[in-house]
Amino acid sequence: MQHRVAAVGGDGIGPEIVAVGKEVLDAAGERFGFDIAWTDFDIGADRYLATGELLTEEDIRELSKFPAIYFGAIGDERVKPGILEKGILLAIRFHFDQFINLRPIKLLDGVATPLANKKPEDIDFIVVRENTEDFYVGIGSRFAGKREKKTLEVVRDIYNVKFGLDVETDADELAYQIGVITRPGAERAIRYAFDLAVTREGKVTSVDKANVLSDVYGLWRDVFSEVAAGYPDVKTEFNFVDAVTMWFVKNPEWFDVVVTPNMFGDIITDLGAMIQGGLGLAPGGNINPAGTSMFEPIHGSAPKYRGQDVANPLATVWAGSMLLDHLGEHEAAAAVLGAIEQSILDGYVTRDMGGAKKTSEVGRYLASLVRTV
Amino acid sequence: MQHRVAAVGGDGIGPEIVAVGKEVLDAAGERFGFDIAWTDFDIGADRYLATGELLTEEDIRELSKFPAIYFGAIGDERVKPGILEKGILLAIRFHFDQFINLRPIKLLDGVATPLANKKPEDIDFIVVRENTEDFYVGIGSRFAGKREKKTLEVVRDIYNVKFGLDVETDADELAYQIGVITRPGAERAIRYAFDLAVTREGKVTSVDKANVLSDVYGLWRDVFSEVAAGYPDVKTEFNFVDAVTMWFVKNPEWFDVVVTPNMFGDIITDLGAMIQGGLGLAPGGNINPAGTSMFEPIHGSAPKYRGQDVANPLATVWAGSMLLDHLGEHEAAAAVLGAIEQSILDGYVTRDMGGAKKTSEVGRYLASLVRTV
Ligand SMILES: CC(C)[C@H](C(=O)O)[C@@H](O)C(=O)O
Ligand SMILES: CC(C)[C@H](C(=O)O)[C@@H](O)C(=O)O
Repeated sequence: MQHRVAAVGGDGIGPEIVAVGKEVLDAAGERFGFDIAWTDFDIGADRYLATGELLTEEDIRELSKFPAIYFGAIGDERVKPGILEKGILLAIRFHFDQFINLRPIKLLDGVATPLANKKPEDIDFIVVRENTEDFYVGIGSRFAGKREKKTLEVVRDIYNVKFGLDVETDADELAYQIGVITRPGAERAIRYAFDLAVTREGKVTSVDKANVLSDVYGLWRDVFSEVAAGYPDVKTEFNFVDAVTMWFVKNPEWFDVVVTPNMFGDIITDLGAMIQGGLGLAPGGNINPAGTSMFEPIHGSAPKYRGQDVANPLATVWAGSMLLDHLGEHEAAAAVLGAIEQSILDGYVTRDMGGAKKTSEVGRYLASLVRTV
Repeated sequence: MQHRVAAVGGDGIGPEIVAVGKEVLDAAGERFGFDIAWTDFDIGADRYLATGELLTEEDIRELSKFPAIYFGAIGDERVKPGILEKGILLAIRFHFDQFINLRPIKLLDGVATPLANKKPEDIDFIVVRENTEDFYVGIGSRFAGKREKKTLEVVRDIYNVKFGLDVETDADELAYQIGVITRPGAERAIRYAFDLAVTREGKVTSVDKANVLSDVYGLWRDVFSEVAAGYPDVKTEFNFVDAVTMWFVKNPEWFDVVVTPNMFGDIITDLGAMIQGGLGLAPGGNINPAGTSMFEPIHGSAPKYRGQDVANPLATVWAGSMLLDHLGEHEAAAAVLGAIEQSILDGYVTRDMGGAKKTSEVGRYLASLVRTV
């Protein structure tokens, strides 16, 4: 059996940690009888600075030939915030319609959480973040004179009165941003969450702010209730996003599957990453079940550690385990996660986790564990 | 000296905890030589259900005669989420242009935090939440046929293509929400934060998501940088909202003054409330320095505890301390906060904090402390 996987190392520590991930996944292939044909893509800050290219038409054409992309990290101190994130990472998510961002929040044995009195059995849930709508659609503008008069009519009426702005002439005094939620967009994410809950503890929590952003999240809630009606055995619950940040910290054991629109998903999964031990241990999958999916650590490119062989590769390796699961290699996926857990129990970890090992040493160790456990 | 203050008990436990707050503030007046003339307002769910009125023109006219409103809580199981919040609480904030929502995050001595190894000296910062703009402006719609064609032109172009929706006929398939940030709106909140930082440790952290919601938060960042230039001795820092939820949990000691747009402010101050010991201990001030301000606990109305004399009044009393500060009664404000700290050290607290006292007992105790310390 052969799987074809695209690899994008990206910026900073990205290439080092993806190299480790490939090594571990190759070891899993040896052990479980499959082979991964890797194709490397040169996408990231260096190419952007040299050629001005972010994600090209050709990149898209080539990447679309793969069921999965193994992605390191992007971000570079020479590039203004937003350019690479939007031009590469979000561009891949949106272009390939990866409508699920799947983020397990699981405290592994032997990992320190910043929460007092919480144990691995208390922190074990999964967030299904809608990944293509909401305030990530990129519709907005800083107001520039007469140009966008129509779209801004309603905004102007309110703000003219309030601050006495003359929007015909006071360019740049006002900015707006539009979020969009559609019924089919909400429905497919919410349905995915319910299908997942059926395989777990059977509980889905919707996180929104329908009491204030009532238009978008009112639609979200209605769709949630309609989908829920088809799963009478699944328990459901609505939480407001502000409150949920409290319960993640106080009672993480309450959660099983959490489903949430894009922007709140971004926020609460970082909080989730921290309670499971920090970004060094937080993987994510960007999933289009019928297309090209992408698996990545959720941390950034940490440019200051680039090339030093000190970065923690565990989030990337865990993302690799999710990638294998996605490809149907469930046993191999479990073995990779098992190897991560074993390396932590053995204290065979990088500096940030209190160990003394190099990135590459951890990689070799994980590969040997996968081959033998 | 006499101060005139409006009191809105509101729903659920609101009236009980405001009653306690008034008792403690009156005691502070006795001790420090001022008198508070309270005027009670009947605003909340009961009146809404009886008359359909939320915040009336007359309420507004009357409330505008006071420098401060002491507010309990609103929310009632008989009313759909959003109605009372928007029709009363947000209506007051917006109508009186209370552009600062000030929320101290301070772990008091003797209070349990859910964070491991954090002490009172680690958790002591303050969030300045912009309180009149951003996604709280209430502009949005669920799409209903031809009615709003113009505003939706840009949205339709994108989503028609994506999901094959016919927005001329498929009513209710799509919703949008618009956030607005203006230069003057951002500037006055950011300037307030810098002025506050000068009286504290001299550090301001801006929290936004300028890498994705680049239009609104790009303007916010530019204004932040411009204001910062006028305070060369204040240290500054930009954090993305997702990351900041991690640092609140991992390194709260990093923060001094945090300034942020409305919606993210809502989220991170609830998280802040939890790390300082929970909602029972989290006050907020909604401030218009030149108009009518409002002080409230940030928790809700907890209908199931209504009338049982078990609710924790400390957040409300702390909000009362902020109210006194706002009225220029700084010594009295400090004495009220001191009484809260003393009652906690004495274990003279309600059930939720591990004590055995009734709401009214805590109130009497705090009043006696304020009179004597
Ligand atoms: C880098 C950024 C664009 C991205 C996001 O906001 O989605 C990141 O925070 C994430 O969560 O994957
Ligand atoms: C009740 C709700 C409208 C309100 C808000 O979102 O601002 C509350 O959460 C708060 O933070 O005061």
